[in-house]
Amino acid sequence: MDCMNVMEIDTVDIDLEKNAVVIIDQTKLPNEVVLKNLRDPKEIWEAIYKLEVRGAPAIGVAAAFGIFVIAKDLSDSCKDEVAFFEMFAQQKEYLNSSRPTAVNLSWALNRMEACLNAHKGESREDQLLALQKEAIEIRDEDIRVCKKIGEYGVELLKDKDGVLTHCNAGKLATIRYGTATSPIYVAKERGMNLRVYCDETRPLLQGARLTAFELFESGIDTTLLCDNMSAALMKQGKVNAIFVGCDRVAANGDTANKIGTSVVATVAARYGVPVYIAAPTSTIDMNCASGDDIVIEQRAGEEVTDMWYKKPMAPKGVKVFNPAFDVTDHELIAGIVTEYGNDRAPYTDYLKEIFKKKKEMRLS
Amino acid sequence: MDCMNVMEIDTVDIDLEKNAVVIIDQTKLPNEVVLKNLRDPKEIWEAIYKLEVRGAPAIGVAAAFGIFVIAKDLSDSCKDEVAFFEMFAQQKEYLNSSRPTAVNLSWALNRMEACLNAHKGESREDQLLALQKEAIEIRDEDIRVCKKIGEYGVELLKDKDGVLTHCNAGKLATIRYGTATSPIYVAKERGMNLRVYCDETRPLLQGARLTAFELFESGIDTTLLCDNMSAALMKQGKVNAIFVGCDRVAANGDTANKIGTSVVATVAARYGVPVYIAAPTSTIDMNCASGDDIVIEQRAGEEVTDMWYKKPMAPKGVKVFNPAFDVTDHELIAGIVTEYGNDRAPYTDYLKEIFKKKKEMRLS
Repeated sequence: MDCMNVMEIDTVDIDLEKNAVVIIDQTKLPNEVVLKNLRDPKEIWEAIYKLEVRGAPAIGVAAAFGIFVIAKDLSDSCKDEVAFFEMFAQQKEYLNSSRPTAVNLSWALNRMEACLNAHKGESREDQLLALQKEAIEIRDEDIRVCKKIGEYGVELLKDKDGVLTHCNAGKLATIRYGTATSPIYVAKERGMNLRVYCDETRPLLQGARLTAFELFESGIDTTLLCDNMSAALMKQGKVNAIFVGCDRVAANGDTANKIGTSVVATVAARYGVPVYIAAPTSTIDMNCASGDDIVIEQRAGEEVTDMWYKKPMAPKGVKVFNPAFDVTDHELIAGIVTEYGNDRAPYTDYLKEIFKKKKEMRLS
Repeated sequence: MDCMNVMEIDTVDIDLEKNAVVIIDQTKLPNEVVLKNLRDPKEIWEAIYKLEVRGAPAIGVAAAFGIFVIAKDLSDSCKDEVAFFEMFAQQKEYLNSSRPTAVNLSWALNRMEACLNAHKGESREDQLLALQKEAIEIRDEDIRVCKKIGEYGVELLKDKDGVLTHCNAGKLATIRYGTATSPIYVAKERGMNLRVYCDETRPLLQGARLTAFELFESGIDTTLLCDNMSAALMKQGKVNAIFVGCDRVAANGDTANKIGTSVVATVAARYGVPVYIAAPTSTIDMNCASGDDIVIEQRAGEEVTDMWYKKPMAPKGVKVFNPAFDVTDHELIAGIVTEYGNDRAPYTDYLKEIFKKKKEMRLS
């Protein structure tokens, strides 16, 4: 499928005629672009479980489309409303078990169930139409939120700037635009020329496999580097700003993101390069006072010693330190860019403002 | 050869009976320990060229032993002294072409040639004996220098400390002890228990393949981590000191070492962890005023995108930033440990002192 421009395809989509979820199979990237139609529950579950679709927002949309596709398929065999609602709840739990720690997964599925419950007693046709609309709205919200982040983020950049990013908070983790990459894509739409540097992001190499891929495919001036090369690059004055995504922002602005983010931020501080977090408000957790409250997942050592390789690259039996995330202290962060604007320290006050604004504007 | 304890074998040795250079083939590590006998010129040249033996000091010793082995072998067919000296010069140039930028290679070969020239007119037997002694002295000096670095370095550590190291400035880059690892091995000899953390060191993975291997084989508490995990580790307070080797130290203490060293040093500064450079005086270049004068080699992108992998891990055609070294600014360095002691800022004065001391002591 070499002729296909992957950037013109949504990361997750729905084919209403075939009643199928359509995804770009990310396990095949960067070597092959494969579109996959998912229809039966097991296919949808496995696509999430096997990371064929990954990135919190993209998973949420895949689950929303997924539960709709399943409901529509099973509707005929569940004429009775009680049986239909029961089946829906079962399938929702099944999909939710594909990656239990992904917040967006349960959030999207709960929203779909609430939608169905709100249409209790209506005709099956109306119920299915409501579910379809809700799933599409979840998708559209993601696109709107990402684009807004890009529009606010691009204000922090100027033509010919060098931007460094870590891991994949890209289009492939969302539907379009991405979060950290959104200012880069919006800049391109506006005719700006940026140079973008992608940390490869060991051990899972999301920066090399996904971010470098999607930026390069989009015709953006893209350079890959290893995670330990950022100081050499910044010392040369090649980087004007750093944009990264995040997994959770605490109320004081401390930010948990892919392992290595705080290394990049520490190096950036030495070279006077501002670090911006691209964060949909859904990832801001005002109940979490600071980064100290964020528990960091430790992952299997094989990801470091064996994965991807022709043969093991470390002595058998050696201990491995493999945290999935680290916390970047708020004092290393120049700004948090949400769908409501660019926020600056002291973060707690600004983040509170954001939630007030959010209530008023209801963008998502 | 699983039963062989690699740590009891010198990285480069000579078998006088078989008249062969004996090396641990480092391209087979960490999966296999293979000893290789090198006898004819092509074998010796290829072992250096293919990195079967690597690390500046180890290459120097391999070349010294190599030119001796060749000279002894070809001695019978070169009865005439002029022809013998001519052959020696030719073979010396041939070995020197195996890795033209390695300073120790030409340094060791020049020293062997000077030795032969000093014995002009003597019997062939005496000439060969002089060459043998000189090669063994080059080897012994390396062992002495490394051990001294360890003895001075260990004074900076206490029992149960955590030590982080980057790349391989280990036993495998020298004959015994290594440079950055020498304080760790001396600590072990003294019954101290250290926890050692090895950066895997992308893209060539010397930390994972070589350093983690040799420390683990030595029974030292060894943990491997990716280069982007140092902040997470240091934030937990697990690291008390960082020891790294170096490729060149400038007169002001700026230090060029494997790419990523300055990233680790920057992170260490944030967490108050001292960074020590383990540097035989042969790597100190008083003619080089500062790090700005050190030219950094850029290497092929394939090392980042393809090497080691089952299939490419980045989009074909993407640009790659792949410098082999970076420069750590002297203000990030807590001390430079040489075979003459521990040196502290301001480095220029101390390094001058060192060279005065060196003249007086003539350790090497």
